Amino acid sequence: MSKTQITAEPGMPLITITRDFEAPRDLVFRAYTDPELVVQWLGPRDLTMSIDCWDVRDGGRWRYIHTDAHGASYGFHGVFHGTPSAEAIVQTFEFEGVPGHVMLDTTTLEQVGGQTTVRTVAAFSSVEDRDGMVAGGMEHGVRDSDERLAELLAKLQAG
Amino acid sequence: MSKTQITAEPGMPLITITRDFEAPRDLVFRAYTDPELVVQWLGPRDLTMSIDCWDVRDGGRWRYIHTDAHGASYGFHGVFHGTPSAEAIVQTFEFEGVPGHVMLDTTTLEQVGGQTTVRTVAAFSSVEDRDGMVAGGMEHGVRDSDERLAELLAKLQAG
Repeated sequence: MSKTQITAEPGMPLITITRDFEAPRDLVFRAYTDPELVVQWLGPRDLTMSIDCWDVRDGGRWRYIHTDAHGASYGFHGVFHGTPSAEAIVQTFEFEGVPGHVMLDTTTLEQVGGQTTVRTVAAFSSVEDRDGMVAGGMEHGVRDSDERLAELLAKLQAG
Repeated sequence: MSKTQITAEPGMPLITITRDFEAPRDLVFRAYTDPELVVQWLGPRDLTMSIDCWDVRDGGRWRYIHTDAHGASYGFHGVFHGTPSAEAIVQTFEFEGVPGHVMLDTTTLEQVGGQTTVRTVAAFSSVEDRDGMVAGGMEHGVRDSDERLAELLAKLQAG
């Protein structure tokens, strides 16, 4: 099975995340933008996601909360920049636990044959901010999310 | 007179802009956030600025248009992230001429004595995006803006 590749080059305020999915681009785009699908895969398996707002348009805001088994919750929010499309989804991303440390994510979806490569570049204002995100356990969340997304895409195509 | 320092380290997707102003921090913050003051200094001298919207709050959108003597106009917009304060103004910035190339700006104001140091870090999703902004004549706009801001701050303190 395809694995998620996470690259955080030393000294650069960027993280690049790449993964191939066995699904057409339009379906992957739906999974990234339809809130009813997003709640089924975004985040680690052991957390429950609830969406506060999810306004998929230029300037639209999104916010969600992840809650663990003990009831602790973690809020995240951001704003879509430009109209999200299968070519590119550009959005800011902020973990409410460390306000003021904003990330700028650009996600591009490219289909070759029946497979879609999803590439996200996360840009930070400093290498320290980038390293803080890595230290905060981002990798676990990303890998779990991608596994769940692969399963959801398989289910949607089988159904 | 203090000059604006612009740093664009090779291979890094960042630009850092620093300048000292002979004014207290609160006044510089007002000049950065009050639209009636912003129109008096932001942009090159030979362009006229008009503000379409300017919503200084967390998630608030701003948009302005620069128009030259021949009537050509250039739109810019972005979103404030977090409540803008004299400690930090975080916002996205997009030139409508090249949609999808979003910049993330963090501006901090620090006062020492009667002087305020304004430091802006602009983060880009790639070095190419950063270099595109530099090639697009950003430096001229920044230096002109800062000269105009210094003049405005002097006028406001004399008045």
